[in-house]
Amino acid sequence: MTLGLVGVGLIGGSIGLAARARADAEVRGYDPSARALECALERGAVDRPCDSLAEAVDGAELVVVAAPVGVLPELVGEVLAVAGADCVVTDVGSTKRAIVAAHGSDQRFVGGHPLAGAETSGVEHARPDLFDGATWYLTPAEHSSGMLYERLHRLIVALGARPAAIEPEAHDRLMATVSHLPHVLANVLVGQAARGLEAEGERLPATGPSFRDATRVAGASSAIWTDIYVSNREALARQIDETVRRLQAVRASLAAADAPALAAWNDSAREDRERLLEVELAGGPVYELRVGVPNRPGVVAEIALALGRAGVNIVDMALYPAPDASEGSVALWLAGEQQADRAAALIGELGLPVVRL
Amino acid sequence: MTLGLVGVGLIGGSIGLAARARADAEVRGYDPSARALECALERGAVDRPCDSLAEAVDGAELVVVAAPVGVLPELVGEVLAVAGADCVVTDVGSTKRAIVAAHGSDQRFVGGHPLAGAETSGVEHARPDLFDGATWYLTPAEHSSGMLYERLHRLIVALGARPAAIEPEAHDRLMATVSHLPHVLANVLVGQAARGLEAEGERLPATGPSFRDATRVAGASSAIWTDIYVSNREALARQIDETVRRLQAVRASLAAADAPALAAWNDSAREDRERLLEVELAGGPVYELRVGVPNRPGVVAEIALALGRAGVNIVDMALYPAPDASEGSVALWLAGEQQADRAAALIGELGLPVVRL
Repeated sequence: MTLGLVGVGLIGGSIGLAARARADAEVRGYDPSARALECALERGAVDRPCDSLAEAVDGAELVVVAAPVGVLPELVGEVLAVAGADCVVTDVGSTKRAIVAAHGSDQRFVGGHPLAGAETSGVEHARPDLFDGATWYLTPAEHSSGMLYERLHRLIVALGARPAAIEPEAHDRLMATVSHLPHVLANVLVGQAARGLEAEGERLPATGPSFRDATRVAGASSAIWTDIYVSNREALARQIDETVRRLQAVRASLAAADAPALAAWNDSAREDRERLLEVELAGGPVYELRVGVPNRPGVVAEIALALGRAGVNIVDMALYPAPDASEGSVALWLAGEQQADRAAALIGELGLPVVRL
Repeated sequence: MTLGLVGVGLIGGSIGLAARARADAEVRGYDPSARALECALERGAVDRPCDSLAEAVDGAELVVVAAPVGVLPELVGEVLAVAGADCVVTDVGSTKRAIVAAHGSDQRFVGGHPLAGAETSGVEHARPDLFDGATWYLTPAEHSSGMLYERLHRLIVALGARPAAIEPEAHDRLMATVSHLPHVLANVLVGQAARGLEAEGERLPATGPSFRDATRVAGASSAIWTDIYVSNREALARQIDETVRRLQAVRASLAAADAPALAAWNDSAREDRERLLEVELAGGPVYELRVGVPNRPGVVAEIALALGRAGVNIVDMALYPAPDASEGSVALWLAGEQQADRAAALIGELGLPVVRL
């Protein structure tokens, strides 16, 4: 496969390293920074450094745009303008609503977001195993080509990640909850503690892990995070409102010295955390489903979204078009019998014929 | 030294292990749970299991009460009632205002709080290195005996921790900021995420570290934390109010899509975190100060508090009473010339004669 990379920082560079090592891809890379591009070549993240975006895209079967959220709509537009009809274009931005609104009507575009690489930046930190086991969200739209979606899905599996289809709006709400809000709280906490300690004339004690853990992501790169905050401001503001409501409820229990209420609240936090972080069944036997699909745009996206919504993880997928392209079938591999049965039921509800092999 | 332990859970058991291994102490332990006491004996945390609190305290030079915050005032009272005139009594509770209000007038009592052991509980997890490098707050009161304070200070240094004197009120405000508030935010975040994911029909993604780190302390033992929350409710409520104010300020920047304000806020969080977590100068040469002290109660506490307030860490201390007990001197060891000079200046401001050896 010929892979075009627009942007060879931490994420783009890691995609290049993994795609070359694990997917036998030929990687063409472009970056506005000549230094980053040179470093990517030295580190083996690209086969061919390119002088322009168009050169990196020319002839590619798949293009990944790995740039800050604020410039993505424009860059993806430039890529789509020069990419071939059979090229799938994706991005790696941390918010998905704006980019899908801009380009979701192009059947070659599928939004993407790998959950990896928060702590560092730059191609010098790129590594081929960055995505191992990480969720990689994909936001196929109604018009996304099934064949192109499948190609992207297979590359992501080859990179070591777990693709999961999701609607752009649900993605942004979810990220507001599990990523953007934690960053806001870490920033607030660290600022509040700094002012508080100054006022007391105290230093941060050599302490247990709670403060360090709680503020680990405070002040992550402003170049990246300002864009994310602005781009997801509505969902994030709603989450902040909810946090304020919850803080005021705790405050009321404290003011009333209501020990039973505080204990119940703390118990439920423990239960929530245990349930949220329950280890997924890794490995286990893989089951194959075969789904008959009409040859119309959007049907693969529908399947991926239905399974993604239900938390069913598609380990791998393959498309088999009929010779006359009038119809075809999709093979899906699921981990574990329970997930396979659940997938079969969900696909049946979409009105599609499905068999377990 | 004969050490009495009242409560042999994680903290009490670890004190016993470290005191036997590092301070050559003979440890007498009492715990209302016969099973815990048996396990403490098996693990080598006590030399002699005792059938009653009075038996563990009888003849001890130092008693540590290691029990949940809610029962500490009563237990410390029981210990003081049976302890000898030359016995120093301390506790390990996470809040200090209430216990010092109850017993600070007894010159044998010095409140304590080692910052260690948040993640587990029970003597089966006790270990002799639990306190290595950890801040161990001490709250000497006006009436605390200097000689008894010194004995406690030296034991804590022997256990591997760093004693730091602080006023009880300042301690509780500080803990509200750097420990109790992070626990509240973790609980809030995990509850909010659980409800949010349920509403979306999504599972927690296999994600970067931000959510896991931010919620690591969520739902810590209700038996311990309910007491802490109730005991420190005023300071914690004030911190929650401040958090709400700060969240509303961020929300306003988001609503205005004010990228420069968000970038500046994020930059300052990064700077605050770097400053807060700046690695302390570990090691380096140690300087000795010798301070002349009148033989009156409270003078050692005054010195310890003055240095603690200024963030000057007393590595070790020793008291040298004059033969007729009319006066004496205190030797203090400080890490680094800067800390030694600062300490000398602060002690000079107290009107005490001080020389650097």
